Amino acid sequence: MTDATLTGLSSAEEPFARIAIIGLGLLGGSIGLAIAAHMPGAVTTGYDLDPATRARAAVRGLAGTICDTAAEAAANADLVILCVPPSVMGDAAAAIAGSVPAGAVISDVGSCKLAVAQALAEALPGHAARGSIIPAHPVAGTENSGADAGFASLFHNRWCIITPPENALLAQVSRLAGLWQALGARVEFMDAAHHDRVLAVTSHLPHLIAYTIVGTASDLEEVTRSEVIKYSAGGFRDFTRIAASDPTMWRDVFLSNKDAVLEMLQRFTEDLTALQRAIRVGDGPALFDHFTRTRAVRRSIIAEGQDDARPDFGRSDHGAEG
Amino acid sequence: MTDATLTGLSSAEEPFARIAIIGLGLLGGSIGLAIAAHMPGAVTTGYDLDPATRARAAVRGLAGTICDTAAEAAANADLVILCVPPSVMGDAAAAIAGSVPAGAVISDVGSCKLAVAQALAEALPGHAARGSIIPAHPVAGTENSGADAGFASLFHNRWCIITPPENALLAQVSRLAGLWQALGARVEFMDAAHHDRVLAVTSHLPHLIAYTIVGTASDLEEVTRSEVIKYSAGGFRDFTRIAASDPTMWRDVFLSNKDAVLEMLQRFTEDLTALQRAIRVGDGPALFDHFTRTRAVRRSIIAEGQDDARPDFGRSDHGAEG
Repeated sequence: MTDATLTGLSSAEEPFARIAIIGLGLLGGSIGLAIAAHMPGAVTTGYDLDPATRARAAVRGLAGTICDTAAEAAANADLVILCVPPSVMGDAAAAIAGSVPAGAVISDVGSCKLAVAQALAEALPGHAARGSIIPAHPVAGTENSGADAGFASLFHNRWCIITPPENALLAQVSRLAGLWQALGARVEFMDAAHHDRVLAVTSHLPHLIAYTIVGTASDLEEVTRSEVIKYSAGGFRDFTRIAASDPTMWRDVFLSNKDAVLEMLQRFTEDLTALQRAIRVGDGPALFDHFTRTRAVRRSIIAEGQDDARPDFGRSDHGAEG
Repeated sequence: MTDATLTGLSSAEEPFARIAIIGLGLLGGSIGLAIAAHMPGAVTTGYDLDPATRARAAVRGLAGTICDTAAEAAANADLVILCVPPSVMGDAAAAIAGSVPAGAVISDVGSCKLAVAQALAEALPGHAARGSIIPAHPVAGTENSGADAGFASLFHNRWCIITPPENALLAQVSRLAGLWQALGARVEFMDAAHHDRVLAVTSHLPHLIAYTIVGTASDLEEVTRSEVIKYSAGGFRDFTRIAASDPTMWRDVFLSNKDAVLEMLQRFTEDLTALQRAIRVGDGPALFDHFTRTRAVRRSIIAEGQDDARPDFGRSDHGAEG
């Protein structure tokens, strides 16, 4: 299914009107703000396990009503979106099991879909049997986290991948797609296993590599931490942004998508070994060929509108590197 | 020596007045534009091996006079700055050997200092004997290259590392430092070997890793190139910017700084193997500890003014990731 065909389908469906957001960090908060901005007919309820987050969420208006329990937030919803780290998706689903209406659609925003789908199905077997657990993953975010990190335009022109189970009703899938389109996203469909392999390479492996290199640089004895920071404009600083992402979420991502991440890592290591050998033996042509090929990928990403075309990401002061 | 002590020294020295720039790409062009903007008393001559680059350089005014040969550009200079890839530094120095005044200072902007210093000394033995070859490396740049890539503010608030030989005259070192400060840079001094190790970790290793992962993602069979590009906002796109850097220059950097790069790569691989093992055995606490530690490095870089504090580098549309 493409974006275009889905738009046709979703227009015939009634939009969700009572949306519960469980977890009010970067993703949950941005969803609440985006619904307020783009779906005037919808009401939202929100809940977060952390009382301080709930208090900030109330101040920022991340949801219309901030509830004291997840069960209360979900009690009258026609859609529940779970916006918590992968390892506690099952707990969050269990917390709403006693109150969420049987007819409600259950969705989420997790970066891994196979593990999350299984956890949700175990906690909400009735909804699973009816095909109304429809996982989703908006490929959007920043390195910030928490109740102050979200903003309404986070999903603009970003892709949201929906991974419906085989027994899902097309009408419900269309409603969910319609919601994400209303928030500014482009929608794509995949089976969960394929999603997990695609994201392993476009998101999980890059984060693992960034976390690794920042750790490596911090641990050197003969190059001081101060030098690493001063000369970070040579390229290193780009990696530090990604390596500043939420530790809890990323721990869970790697543990929840272990097989795909380890496989992609194996391929990366093989490629790195080949380049290492080219450097060791002084094979300039092999290096040049590789570096020329990778340049084209950047051009495609810019042509697709998935990054800023300005040099150095358009950093405010024209940045630095070299 | 620190930035502050040097400022004191350089104020007593006469600034360079006739500066030859050999190589008019991103770095050479930016130097020419920055001199025009900040040093009204100085005249510049420029040369590039590529006739098309010389033509564009004349249109953009990258130097006051664009010459037809390197020898002509250097003939009347009191400072020559070689802005060519590391592998051809020796050739560029040889091309000016017959014309450059005996009293001129010779400098460069290369990312590797040991190999470049050796190549320059071989091509200009008289200058080497007098201690007037003073290599430098402004840690600044973007992923773009060529005659249209340079801009006058490239060096603002970036560090320039000068690696003077033991027989250099302090007065000449101070003049060179004064030039870089006039262009907006902060100046630091190091011996060449230490420079090469510091840059191996803050610049060379990050580029090698980025080139590798972009290649790995392009070569997958079961995940299409189109999917890699569509979902690149999950983190991958950050790496594609660095992997779009000039292939010629980076081939040369890795070959010229082979030992330090291979050593840093070895440490990186060890650290990656440790994280890989933590994922395989499901050691969540080890992952969480590592990811928490790396977050602090980002904060230091922003506090030092070496990167944009806004989420997602302040990308125009608030970007995406996740």
